[in-house]
Amino acid sequence: MKGLFITLEGGEGSGKTTIAQMLKEALEPQKHVMITREPGGVKIAEEIRNVIVDVNNTEMDARTEALLYAASRRQHLVEKVKPVLNQGGIVICDRFIDSSLVYQGIGRGLGIENVYNMNLFATEGMMPDLTLFFDIKPEEALKRIKLDDEREVNRLDLESLSFHQSVYEGYKKIASMYPERIKTINAACSIDDVLQQALKEIDKVL
Amino acid sequence: MKGLFITLEGGEGSGKTTIAQMLKEALEPQKHVMITREPGGVKIAEEIRNVIVDVNNTEMDARTEALLYAASRRQHLVEKVKPVLNQGGIVICDRFIDSSLVYQGIGRGLGIENVYNMNLFATEGMMPDLTLFFDIKPEEALKRIKLDDEREVNRLDLESLSFHQSVYEGYKKIASMYPERIKTINAACSIDDVLQQALKEIDKVL
Repeated sequence: MKGLFITLEGGEGSGKTTIAQMLKEALEPQKHVMITREPGGVKIAEEIRNVIVDVNNTEMDARTEALLYAASRRQHLVEKVKPVLNQGGIVICDRFIDSSLVYQGIGRGLGIENVYNMNLFATEGMMPDLTLFFDIKPEEALKRIKLDDEREVNRLDLESLSFHQSVYEGYKKIASMYPERIKTINAACSIDDVLQQALKEIDKVL
Repeated sequence: MKGLFITLEGGEGSGKTTIAQMLKEALEPQKHVMITREPGGVKIAEEIRNVIVDVNNTEMDARTEALLYAASRRQHLVEKVKPVLNQGGIVICDRFIDSSLVYQGIGRGLGIENVYNMNLFATEGMMPDLTLFFDIKPEEALKRIKLDDEREVNRLDLESLSFHQSVYEGYKKIASMYPERIKTINAACSIDDVLQQALKEIDKVL
């Protein structure tokens, strides 16, 4: 792979989506940059996602769900991410394997290692070159969401504070497990400050 | 698990489906017997299977397909197989994990061990108590299919002879890898003879 694969991780309201766009603008002059998020408009991945989010599928087992996320991830990776990396571009992906480690591994109690190993089958061992964890306490992040009139409220936004807190603790745990790959960004400061921290980490791997 | 979980494996035309019904009739007086096959009428598993078999999904990656089979397997196992086993019944399942080892692991070239480990996530390490491999050379099996007017021709029937041969060799290989669990039944003889061999193996584990 000649390109650079960057993933953005963190709880709801941590600023990932805003920063993704700013990173693209800052890096575009140097290299082709694609911003994406799973399922990313890939037909098969979208169909898989539809099975996951179907509100009638109340009998969905946690392992079934984790396998479906991995299947969707695989197809998005093959059809959309790898072609850009093969041509030397930068891919910025909003959520990737670490979201599964946190939400399924910790949140659903399946175990980080189990979910990690199963996902390696999906990624064929391929991991991001760099993962930025946007570190902000959930109380603060949720305040931001409430102040943002333009934001469409999603399913995760509506979970309880204790859910968001366990996600936050989960991210801190996996950031400490993979310190070479996952870099922590202080996301509680101004957006320009967050952008500068992110660009600094990207510069180190470029 | 108080029950007995039996899986039937082999190429097309090896007689699995016919024998499943005869086994049920032979065993029913002793214990409750459920015959099933994935996705087995389980709604979520059916929806997943629809994504796999959709003829428009020509971009389907082999690993995506293997993950989807495993997801369908998981849901069928949880919703349909385990409840019967928990109540002490016998489950006879037409194809299970070994079909993935052969068709995806060998047929698609993903590797037996890779597909096996990923499937252990789906089954939570649970394996059949007994697997019967119906051993018949593909030339013979395909002759039977042609003679059977009532059989609906399926997608696998239409594959080339060399495909069926590689499946056959695949089954022989995994039967030799897991000799404790997989018992080979000579499926080239009369149906009554095949049934007697199968019942003999089941008696040993009952």
